[in-house]
Amino acid sequence: MRFRFVYTGVRVRDMERALRFYTEGVGMRLKERVKIPETGGEVATLLTEGSEQLLELNWYPQEGLHRDYREGDELDHLAFEVPALDGALEHLVKQGATVTLEPFREGGEWLAYVKDPDGIWIELTAHER
Amino acid sequence: MRFRFVYTGVRVRDMERALRFYTEGVGMRLKERVKIPETGGEVATLLTEGSEQLLELNWYPQEGLHRDYREGDELDHLAFEVPALDGALEHLVKQGATVTLEPFREGGEWLAYVKDPDGIWIELTAHER
Repeated sequence: MRFRFVYTGVRVRDMERALRFYTEGVGMRLKERVKIPETGGEVATLLTEGSEQLLELNWYPQEGLHRDYREGDELDHLAFEVPALDGALEHLVKQGATVTLEPFREGGEWLAYVKDPDGIWIELTAHER
Repeated sequence: MRFRFVYTGVRVRDMERALRFYTEGVGMRLKERVKIPETGGEVATLLTEGSEQLLELNWYPQEGLHRDYREGDELDHLAFEVPALDGALEHLVKQGATVTLEPFREGGEWLAYVKDPDGIWIELTAHER
């Protein structure tokens, strides 16, 4: 089972403020900023020179799927790519994870979410179910 | 001001359980595991094949500096290397950060912590103050 750690996603309350902080403050480069039609939210991906580590800023509308931001919501999820979704899910559940969002399609990809034993949300993405 | 994003640190309640999950479960490779004499805690760094993204597991004793783990403590900090600490701190404070731990030495390095405008802890490390 091959997982590839892709980025860390943090949740922000104000996308403009957060982007300003991480670009003008921390000096990160904005790689991509996209709206997510499925949630009405927005995602921005940033990186620094000399590092491939990606930081993803996640903003959600304060309605529908997502409850209000509160202290402790800072970490949104860790993201891993896997070759196929169902096998990876089954494997992680055996290892103590719990499924929090069953597999669904978003764009051309399959996604699912699990919680690790500490409650950390992990996103799994795959081209194949 | 040059920042280099180095890793994401998450806080775990049981280091053995977390290491088992991220190695046997997620298939990450343990790069390093060290005890931190200053806190009595422990740190493990992991990575996956095909990615330079580093995940750091942080475990702290449930006494002294660190309050009990509660939901919302999952994200420990984002870590950035900077050339010199004081300038970076001053710069980030101007950008809306607040200093949570003033500069201190650990091993051969200078460290400091700030909170970003969303409350996310950011570690700054530098060889020079």
